[in-house]
Amino acid sequence: MSDFAIGVDLGGTSLRVAVVEDKGTLLEKLTLSTKVLRGPERVVAAMCDSIAALQTRYKSNGKMMGIGVGVPGIIDLHTGVLRESPNLPGWHDYPVLQEIEHRLGTRVILENDANVGAMGEYWLGAGRGYDSMFMYTLGTGIGGGIVFEGAIWHGMTGMAGEPGHTTIEPKGPPCACGNRGCLEQFAGATAVIRMAKEAIAEGHAPKLKREVDNGQELNPQLVYKLATQGDKASRAIYRTVGEALGISVASMINVLNLPIFVIGGGVAGAWEAFSPYIFEEVRKRSFVYNATAPPEGERIAPGCTHITHALLGADSGLYGAARLPMLPEERKAHSTNARSSSRAL
Amino acid sequence: MSDFAIGVDLGGTSLRVAVVEDKGTLLEKLTLSTKVLRGPERVVAAMCDSIAALQTRYKSNGKMMGIGVGVPGIIDLHTGVLRESPNLPGWHDYPVLQEIEHRLGTRVILENDANVGAMGEYWLGAGRGYDSMFMYTLGTGIGGGIVFEGAIWHGMTGMAGEPGHTTIEPKGPPCACGNRGCLEQFAGATAVIRMAKEAIAEGHAPKLKREVDNGQELNPQLVYKLATQGDKASRAIYRTVGEALGISVASMINVLNLPIFVIGGGVAGAWEAFSPYIFEEVRKRSFVYNATAPPEGERIAPGCTHITHALLGADSGLYGAARLPMLPEERKAHSTNARSSSRAL
Repeated sequence: MSDFAIGVDLGGTSLRVAVVEDKGTLLEKLTLSTKVLRGPERVVAAMCDSIAALQTRYKSNGKMMGIGVGVPGIIDLHTGVLRESPNLPGWHDYPVLQEIEHRLGTRVILENDANVGAMGEYWLGAGRGYDSMFMYTLGTGIGGGIVFEGAIWHGMTGMAGEPGHTTIEPKGPPCACGNRGCLEQFAGATAVIRMAKEAIAEGHAPKLKREVDNGQELNPQLVYKLATQGDKASRAIYRTVGEALGISVASMINVLNLPIFVIGGGVAGAWEAFSPYIFEEVRKRSFVYNATAPPEGERIAPGCTHITHALLGADSGLYGAARLPMLPEERKAHSTNARSSSRAL
Repeated sequence: MSDFAIGVDLGGTSLRVAVVEDKGTLLEKLTLSTKVLRGPERVVAAMCDSIAALQTRYKSNGKMMGIGVGVPGIIDLHTGVLRESPNLPGWHDYPVLQEIEHRLGTRVILENDANVGAMGEYWLGAGRGYDSMFMYTLGTGIGGGIVFEGAIWHGMTGMAGEPGHTTIEPKGPPCACGNRGCLEQFAGATAVIRMAKEAIAEGHAPKLKREVDNGQELNPQLVYKLATQGDKASRAIYRTVGEALGISVASMINVLNLPIFVIGGGVAGAWEAFSPYIFEEVRKRSFVYNATAPPEGERIAPGCTHITHALLGADSGLYGAARLPMLPEERKAHSTNARSSSRAL
């Protein structure tokens, strides 16, 4: 007998719904394809059916604590409308919170997917035992989530936690966000593929070229495979990934002095290839890190700044979404505002 | 009749002690030269004499709420030892908190000078009315202070709030902190002077050269004066200041989505010369800013991101130091920690 919550992770290709106990055990996980379902109405209907089925199945297990839903893209936190979502075409301005609550007849907590991922790692993964945490999620692009003293930091309009769009190289490659030289241009999956294509086009990457010519898909996994086999061009790409992340992590340490920085998402699978360059840059660029780094040869020590990879893989968002309804009200999220709406200049 | 606190701002050249009422009125301010006093013991003795004299003078005014002291440099928040202070030679590892408390026979609150400056602006200056605030202090170098939900953000070891040492240009000029291309290398007083010297040496700044040859001191005020007179070289220097700040502010908006960013310190006196470039960069580089910017032609609007200059000048630290003992315990400061000191990897 244990209380539980239901966590939902809505992605571009799959919808996953899980029952998670308050002590962190995942009891059951359902996975549906969002591609097959096509369109927000069908996806929400399938989501709500799954939630209802799981709720019935586990009702004798303990108290049902609530439902948390992670969705990709920019959510209006006040209205629960999904404003924009590159991974969910057709969901533009869809009132996702309202539709789910209407179908289920109960309140749910809606949250950005990178934030639920961070909350999952904070609860049961790399961030366990820390008060505050900064997470980078290296997916197609780069997302992020910040936990301050146990609660997700939303900022004023829920748009906080976008380290992928901080400037690493002021005159670097243009980014879809309008900026140039964003971290996302050096360290997400799209960036790895772009750098690999550039290296092939410039004739610097004969091994990558051979694999692609042989029909292999050019993706971060392929570049990582060649990097582990010693291919120079592939290693150089992950060196760039690590250096860019290191520049960003160093700046964030100097500004926020947090105890732990976690790198997750698909590209983080290449941790062994890029992480040495994170540490190299951070040691060069952050005097706060140098004052708080673990002793030589150790990766973690009490009171030190810890930089590490995520532990929960693709399930972090499911755990984090389920965690939200378990948190006391004041720990659900920080959001900051102008206290008064009309003040003199 | 009004309750009051005593605020102390200890600087490299002067020590200032003020009585500030809980509604924000400064009743009296004493200023002493720290240069004349020489050495921590004498300065602390003079500080404590001033505090005691003011305390006696105002005891019939209301309840004395406490004493806050702002000091430049890196403080060990647990022990109250001033670890390092470029502006206070001879104070290295001086147990400043212990010495003050011993002399006064009462508790005082010690805080970093950039943090008390931020707290002052938050209480009575540019940040008034906001929940959270990010402040840059453009002095000789660049300091900073972050207020999250009413309390100073210290981070794990009290070293948070160093935006001056975030990387703006990965291969930029070396910084004393060990990094290259820090914001401080483009936007503090030392940076303005360095850029002016470089422009003179390269023959690009005939007007600056003439002023210096005529015996004027080369400082940010001189460069600002020439910039307002239309001197191209001086304007280019403040353009660099504004662009570098804009790159930094854009990144901080995308990561933290705070409602207000305040630029203070001596160099901020040249606000009119550099601020247009902050806004230019932020509009190019922060999609979060663009989603939350005030309407065209307005500088501030409810629910928008506000970027502005400090309002209290050199007194911000005095007000902020006096504010600290007035705050309820949970608002005095955030500090974040590993919750458990021994956890498995």
